[in-house]
Amino acid sequence: MRLRPTGIYPPIPTIFDLATGEVDSAAIEANVRRWMTTGLSGVLALGSNGEAALLTDAEIDRVIQAARSAVPRDRLLLVGTGRESTRAAIVAAIRAAELGADAVLVRAPFYYRGQMTTDVLTTHFRAVADASPVPVLLYNLPGVTGFSFTVDLVARLAEHPNVVGLKETSTDLERLGQFAAIRSDTFAVLSGWAPVIYPALCAGAAGGILALANVLPDACVDIFEHTRAGRHDPARALQRKVMRLAQLVTSVHGVAGLKAAMDLAGYHGGPVRAPLPPLSAAARDDIRNELAVQAAAVD
Amino acid sequence: MRLRPTGIYPPIPTIFDLATGEVDSAAIEANVRRWMTTGLSGVLALGSNGEAALLTDAEIDRVIQAARSAVPRDRLLLVGTGRESTRAAIVAAIRAAELGADAVLVRAPFYYRGQMTTDVLTTHFRAVADASPVPVLLYNLPGVTGFSFTVDLVARLAEHPNVVGLKETSTDLERLGQFAAIRSDTFAVLSGWAPVIYPALCAGAAGGILALANVLPDACVDIFEHTRAGRHDPARALQRKVMRLAQLVTSVHGVAGLKAAMDLAGYHGGPVRAPLPPLSAAARDDIRNELAVQAAAVD
Amino acid sequence: MRLRPTGIYPPIPTIFDLATGEVDSAAIEANVRRWMTTGLSGVLALGSNGEAALLTDAEIDRVIQAARSAVPRDRLLLVGTGRESTRAAIVAAIRAAELGADAVLVRAPFYYRGQMTTDVLTTHFRAVADASPVPVLLYNLPGVTGFSFTVDLVARLAEHPNVVGLKETSTDLERLGQFAAIRSDTFAVLSGWAPVIYPALCAGAAGGILALANVLPDACVDIFEHTRAGRHDPARALQRKVMRLAQLVTSVHGVAGLKAAMDLAGYHGGPVRAPLPPLSAAARDDIRNELAVQAAAVD
Amino acid sequence: MRLRPTGIYPPIPTIFDLATGEVDSAAIEANVRRWMTTGLSGVLALGSNGEAALLTDAEIDRVIQAARSAVPRDRLLLVGTGRESTRAAIVAAIRAAELGADAVLVRAPFYYRGQMTTDVLTTHFRAVADASPVPVLLYNLPGVTGFSFTVDLVARLAEHPNVVGLKETSTDLERLGQFAAIRSDTFAVLSGWAPVIYPALCAGAAGGILALANVLPDACVDIFEHTRAGRHDPARALQRKVMRLAQLVTSVHGVAGLKAAMDLAGYHGGPVRAPLPPLSAAARDDIRNELAVQAAAVD
Repeated sequence: MRLRPTGIYPPIPTIFDLATGEVDSAAIEANVRRWMTTGLSGVLALGSNGEAALLTDAEIDRVIQAARSAVPRDRLLLVGTGRESTRAAIVAAIRAAELGADAVLVRAPFYYRGQMTTDVLTTHFRAVADASPVPVLLYNLPGVTGFSFTVDLVARLAEHPNVVGLKETSTDLERLGQFAAIRSDTFAVLSGWAPVIYPALCAGAAGGILALANVLPDACVDIFEHTRAGRHDPARALQRKVMRLAQLVTSVHGVAGLKAAMDLAGYHGGPVRAPLPPLSAAARDDIRNELAVQAAAVD
Repeated sequence: MRLRPTGIYPPIPTIFDLATGEVDSAAIEANVRRWMTTGLSGVLALGSNGEAALLTDAEIDRVIQAARSAVPRDRLLLVGTGRESTRAAIVAAIRAAELGADAVLVRAPFYYRGQMTTDVLTTHFRAVADASPVPVLLYNLPGVTGFSFTVDLVARLAEHPNVVGLKETSTDLERLGQFAAIRSDTFAVLSGWAPVIYPALCAGAAGGILALANVLPDACVDIFEHTRAGRHDPARALQRKVMRLAQLVTSVHGVAGLKAAMDLAGYHGGPVRAPLPPLSAAARDDIRNELAVQAAAVD
Repeated sequence: MRLRPTGIYPPIPTIFDLATGEVDSAAIEANVRRWMTTGLSGVLALGSNGEAALLTDAEIDRVIQAARSAVPRDRLLLVGTGRESTRAAIVAAIRAAELGADAVLVRAPFYYRGQMTTDVLTTHFRAVADASPVPVLLYNLPGVTGFSFTVDLVARLAEHPNVVGLKETSTDLERLGQFAAIRSDTFAVLSGWAPVIYPALCAGAAGGILALANVLPDACVDIFEHTRAGRHDPARALQRKVMRLAQLVTSVHGVAGLKAAMDLAGYHGGPVRAPLPPLSAAARDDIRNELAVQAAAVD
Repeated sequence: MRLRPTGIYPPIPTIFDLATGEVDSAAIEANVRRWMTTGLSGVLALGSNGEAALLTDAEIDRVIQAARSAVPRDRLLLVGTGRESTRAAIVAAIRAAELGADAVLVRAPFYYRGQMTTDVLTTHFRAVADASPVPVLLYNLPGVTGFSFTVDLVARLAEHPNVVGLKETSTDLERLGQFAAIRSDTFAVLSGWAPVIYPALCAGAAGGILALANVLPDACVDIFEHTRAGRHDPARALQRKVMRLAQLVTSVHGVAGLKAAMDLAGYHGGPVRAPLPPLSAAARDDIRNELAVQAAAVD
């Protein structure tokens, strides 16, 4: 049966040992085990928040293995495997599947963005989907790539038997709404932007892959469950409540901000890898204060 | 009592005589009378769809007078009065009020956009709000101005007793959600983008100023009423149904497309003013076909 | 004989009375008379630095009249007459000619920038050029309009007998080089960006319309004369010497910075019109220091 | 003595075997040997035109080895070694030096472009320059990375004893002029944009790394030599003559266009690697015609 991912997934950070800077598999496992005690539907490893662009191939293997060891089989391990060349993207998808990924999330090549027409991207993603042993989720993240998938591209790719959905990382709900309307029964659109997760679910998203879910998994799952159950007023209220923290741990303070928030929330966070800069003390205070607001408001 | 605009408003086109190219007041009046037989909450005259940038001051007066004569006193006549200089924006707001506007919609100056900081815009809009005899709606349209209002700017201006709301013309629902959360009881946010009107209402919008409402007023009002009443499934279904026509009459084919759709729907549409180009035959067919789809689906 | 503008022109500011904020014709005249004692080839009135977007039609007339009274007949009075509608652009060109303009400088309409295709702009500019009693200079200023003229557009328009040149306001010398190659004998390209005036002249520009020339007319004329005479080393050295001041009076501090520099250099400068903000004390010091550097280096 | 690269360098394509798609070292060597019979000052391997982003580490080694074997010791082998993580960029620079690179060309990390402030980039490039056994050239290519180096960044880095210059790949000659003025005696700025190479040399560039030099090495060297010798008229004429071909082999038709032009000019060109698309027949004709124009004009 065709996979249709729904619910909330955290795009998990790759944890580095503070002393050595090397990948800390034990810390990753510990984080994932704790997340898996909540209502999260699984995790995404090696997305943008996983600093995948800063890792070697050997490190990437270790991250997948650590995550797999802690994600139970009835939840999903999604793995980011986008690469610049088609052949490298295929190799990465096959390797992730060997190591236990349930599905792969594939961003577009973007070094040569001027050449990435709808036809070129169709050819690229079809080749990856043909070769991948596990289902493929498309990954639209214009903030990184500098361009967006067209509706025409996604409509073509949604017909491929091994393409099961798409992650849309933007605030643009016209585009998300169009993607979600393509094959709403079998093609799942997941929002990657916590500040709009509630209206995205209204517009037809099947769930979300949200940096905020690393820190506040329950709140994110609650927004999802409220909306699914038709409880729109509490969903909207919760969306507003988490808005600022959602901004702090992604667009405002980046991966360093996310890891600081995780440290403060009792997860393993720790340092980011250069060239990403360490968090300033002021930014850490900003995040600490906002976490306190969240905790107080819950009571 | 403070005005709080809600519901759906069409941003009405300025109708030109086919032979002379001059403003056709009678046609404007006839259109407005027909719109006022529906559930629309009023109209906006002299917005972007009103070709305000292409009119003389004398023509602007005639458009306001024509609209006022056909909008009953229990609905709202909103009038676009943004200008590049602060003094001209004040003069325009006062004149619109003299001619019967219930409120004015004021875009930011943008010729010198590099200088339009939050502080500069705060000073500008406060001066206009201080001087305007009628309430002011802020108009955020980054697609024209090249920049967006910040949340900080809107929060400052929302405290002014004569600033009653904002029109947000974009697909960005993070921003709209933040604007709508500022003073949700008294400061009304209206979406200006029909392809996202349903999720915008979910995110907290109080209504919409929608080009599509010139052509399909009932469908737009239905989305608003469904959402307000908690009927989310039909609201989402209707949003999807009108998506393509909503795109054709704004982003795809511009004011000429909107006027063609109005001609086809039995309103007065007619020509646009140069340099805006006439609609191609292919574009007209495109719009005709989509209108037929809408009519068929209704049955 | 066909006009072919060459040399250096300052885009003159519109001077406002400090007490009343009204146009100060006497101050404009005095400035122009002083500039006309230098090697400048004329002036441009009512460009972006002339705050034309902030003036009424009556004020525009007064500025043209003041400039005309002080520009001798053997130098050129260029007047900015771009408007959003084709009919308004025609009216403005005719009026400027009546008041003595030798040529008009016409920017593209840009409120509806999404519709301003090469075909649409061709039609617009041909209509203006057909109707204008004086020669037309095209004005490409992508920093304001948000788009650039294509080479195809300029090549088409350069064939019109009443289109004699183009002002290119950008740092892009590929585009300027292509425009300058179109009809290099009769179609004059003037650079509007002082920080690249020397390489622009190398690439084929016939001269420049430079904010910096309001403050340092002699240095700007010297760069032009050195380059024309094949003295490239002093031209390049002078370009480097004026680089920072050229940035301060345009991109960094805007019209207020330009007017402050003029005050400091003994011209009439004075206030800008709202919403343009007054200059900060720090910015004024920055400009004063840089002017002192210029003066010292001259010795 | 400090290296100061001047003159013209082609950014050489990586040649792939038509049948297998693997790196063809013999073809790369043959190309380089032929280029080295001209006045070129060396070559750049593994830049954007080298499809470096699409190669494995093992392939990268083979390309450097092939180029090194054919570049004589009195000319320069430059090698692109930018990577996303600071540690990977260091590893790549050390490896390139081991394989014989005379200098490395290092682009900025850009996956996390929102975090790449001047301070962050300063830290990154200093770490790379500290660790690199050979001199470092900075690589500013905003068309790929989405941001530009600031003048402040380049001024800081130009003080590092192992940073000897910068490649500027844009049409912006204000920026290039500022970079070139920083330490014009010891810090060499090379333009990466053939359509502006002549005015870039006027503005202070010490040379160019030009895709066009793969196809027309003599013409590119001639522009350089003419300008250096003060023969500006023939330099400008040659710039205009090669303008269109320069555009075709980079911005218009990408690496596939460049390789097609090389095939037509008697070099080894061949296929590009997916996802880059093969060239259309129409594009190939376009390039063939323009090459014929060049040949005819030479006579």
